[in-house]
Amino acid sequence: MESAERIDRDIETLAGPDFTRSDEAIRRYAYTPEYRNTLDYFGRELRALGFEVDEDPVGTLVARNRPPGEPVFGIGSHCDSNRNGGRYDGTMGVVAALEVCRLNEERGLGLPLQVVSFLEEEGSGFGQMLLGSRIMLQRVTEEELHDSFRAIDDGRSFWEHAAAAGYEPERWRESGHVLDDLSGWIEMHIEQARVLQDTGNRIGIVNAIAGYVHADVRVTGRGDHAGATPMDLRLDPTLPLAETIVELERLAHAAGKGTVGTVGEIEVDPGIINAIGASVRFSLDIRGPKDDAFQGVAREIAGFAEEAASRRGMRAEYRQRQTLPATPLDSRIVAALESAAEATGEPFTTMHSGAAHDTMCVAARVPSAMVFVPCKDGISHHPDEDADPADAALAAEIILAAIQSLA
Amino acid sequence: MESAERIDRDIETLAGPDFTRSDEAIRRYAYTPEYRNTLDYFGRELRALGFEVDEDPVGTLVARNRPPGEPVFGIGSHCDSNRNGGRYDGTMGVVAALEVCRLNEERGLGLPLQVVSFLEEEGSGFGQMLLGSRIMLQRVTEEELHDSFRAIDDGRSFWEHAAAAGYEPERWRESGHVLDDLSGWIEMHIEQARVLQDTGNRIGIVNAIAGYVHADVRVTGRGDHAGATPMDLRLDPTLPLAETIVELERLAHAAGKGTVGTVGEIEVDPGIINAIGASVRFSLDIRGPKDDAFQGVAREIAGFAEEAASRRGMRAEYRQRQTLPATPLDSRIVAALESAAEATGEPFTTMHSGAAHDTMCVAARVPSAMVFVPCKDGISHHPDEDADPADAALAAEIILAAIQSLA
Repeated sequence: MESAERIDRDIETLAGPDFTRSDEAIRRYAYTPEYRNTLDYFGRELRALGFEVDEDPVGTLVARNRPPGEPVFGIGSHCDSNRNGGRYDGTMGVVAALEVCRLNEERGLGLPLQVVSFLEEEGSGFGQMLLGSRIMLQRVTEEELHDSFRAIDDGRSFWEHAAAAGYEPERWRESGHVLDDLSGWIEMHIEQARVLQDTGNRIGIVNAIAGYVHADVRVTGRGDHAGATPMDLRLDPTLPLAETIVELERLAHAAGKGTVGTVGEIEVDPGIINAIGASVRFSLDIRGPKDDAFQGVAREIAGFAEEAASRRGMRAEYRQRQTLPATPLDSRIVAALESAAEATGEPFTTMHSGAAHDTMCVAARVPSAMVFVPCKDGISHHPDEDADPADAALAAEIILAAIQSLA
Repeated sequence: MESAERIDRDIETLAGPDFTRSDEAIRRYAYTPEYRNTLDYFGRELRALGFEVDEDPVGTLVARNRPPGEPVFGIGSHCDSNRNGGRYDGTMGVVAALEVCRLNEERGLGLPLQVVSFLEEEGSGFGQMLLGSRIMLQRVTEEELHDSFRAIDDGRSFWEHAAAAGYEPERWRESGHVLDDLSGWIEMHIEQARVLQDTGNRIGIVNAIAGYVHADVRVTGRGDHAGATPMDLRLDPTLPLAETIVELERLAHAAGKGTVGTVGEIEVDPGIINAIGASVRFSLDIRGPKDDAFQGVAREIAGFAEEAASRRGMRAEYRQRQTLPATPLDSRIVAALESAAEATGEPFTTMHSGAAHDTMCVAARVPSAMVFVPCKDGISHHPDEDADPADAALAAEIILAAIQSLA
């Protein structure tokens, strides 16, 4: 059977009723029976290839074909889904890693490998993105795991759920050992945007993961009667909002270097047709692979919004929710992937990832890179998500060749 | 007792527990016991002044001091409230009309008067603004009264509620007779904006009521990943939204003549921080006392939004919800009010009303005008609504003097 067929079969299997809580979408997240079944599927397949299969103290799957203490090359992704997810996001990366292991076995290459499937990347269970890899990197606190992080469905803590599922959350700090023997790390993932499709490439070699600023701006105006208040007596907060949206586009363009900026949430209070808003809150999502560029846009747009409001006699408050620096990936692994891709003769490009991935955490300790495959029309986190197993098979070949060349 | 004291006492009484369904706000609407109590209060006070008190077939209060067939001058407003209302909107207009009747009696002027308190101006019971005056003008259909207009609280039809309250909705067309004997009509109302307060006037003589266009624009973009989609590959619908908001302000200013334009509702779909909107819907509220001016702005902004979207490869659809032409008021009554105001030596101004009022309907059959008094900071439709009984007393004097001069 060819790689693409095996990948297709894995994907189809994992879209079946035992592996998702809904028949309209993929719904699979930490500590659910469907998630358990998915780990068991990968465990069986990897054991059949001679891998030792284990889980870290909170449930990240780890499988290796060398005993602990010996260097291995890491590959994998996550197999949890968005709450209204598709078949490919995350899962196809673990499937591609499994395929790399199959090819390694079939061809008798004997490469030392470790597959990792991270717990709870999407945050669908507990509302916390990259949870498994953040636990591994100790980018969470015991208090958060014990108290603050609570299940969306029943409000019980992460700690309780992990214990109930048979894990040992009190040993969470030992999760870091998963990375101890890794000489390198490559994650394959669907792109989640349209760059590969629109540029006609089958493969993206990822040399950086964008950092981001998430923030909110609240403009406080005055909620007057829309009919009775003359234009000159208004403090209408939608005007600084509008000027800020236009300026954000200009600033992101001007910053270049892959910087992007988006206003995704807008809330007018009271939000009725015949009232001037008393206030408007809107979100800012500003990202890029170059810290100085995207952080600069965040600073400038904060200042612009405040000025735009005060020019009109209003106030704007900028409040950062969260920020993460960009993650440059390892140039040696990127170069190995580029050579391997080049050798296939298939169209590929080197690019950054605008979306966050577990590799952001791994890269802090292990030389890392990623490989993207196209997803149809850039749709992800949705049942309509679609990707081609043949592209994943191509990625598996490229990853395998890169690991060989790095050995 | 002075007029201001009597007005204050009326207002205080009608803010008491028998007259509102909530102790945090005034909540009083058609066919509730609290509304019934309010009509009974006005009925008692007017009967004490020798008025014949009656109700039209659906519950609009009508009281006159001359027998049917003899000409009378109409005064009044409405005494239902917004669902989270204050003490003054509507009610203070009926109270001022009552005070005009008291002064007429006290001073032995013998002016022929008819007080009207319109049913359901705010639409709090059935979601239909100006309902009593629209019924009076046959600006509704039997089908609407019978079927479409349903109570917000229990979903039963207007018809059912009216019948249950002892009215005869099948005779609704006879409501028009309320206006048969009117030689003129003056409604006093709080301004609901800040023009009087900000210009230091105690009285506004209203010479026109703005017409309006209510519409929606939907811009359809493409809901891509906010991090992973480069600026050049985006179809972000918030940008045509932003450009349209800025242009609407420019167009309203340029049109002048009291034209105003407001975007009060904005809905981004899906409306999450890390996704470019797939589409945006926003409302337009465009008004003014000059039809050509505000209708022109509505046409131009519709065209602008479509262009702004198509310049960026998107679509915008403009959809009108509702429109009403402006209502010019009667110049003879306006002049009589201006002379009467002039004679008091108090600061007043002539202005249009940006808000809709029952007088829009009355004016179609009877020479009409309105008098505004200031409300604090322009706040209305809110428990914080505040107005000065002394201003209402001044308005009552001016209305009385104007009616005398017109007799």
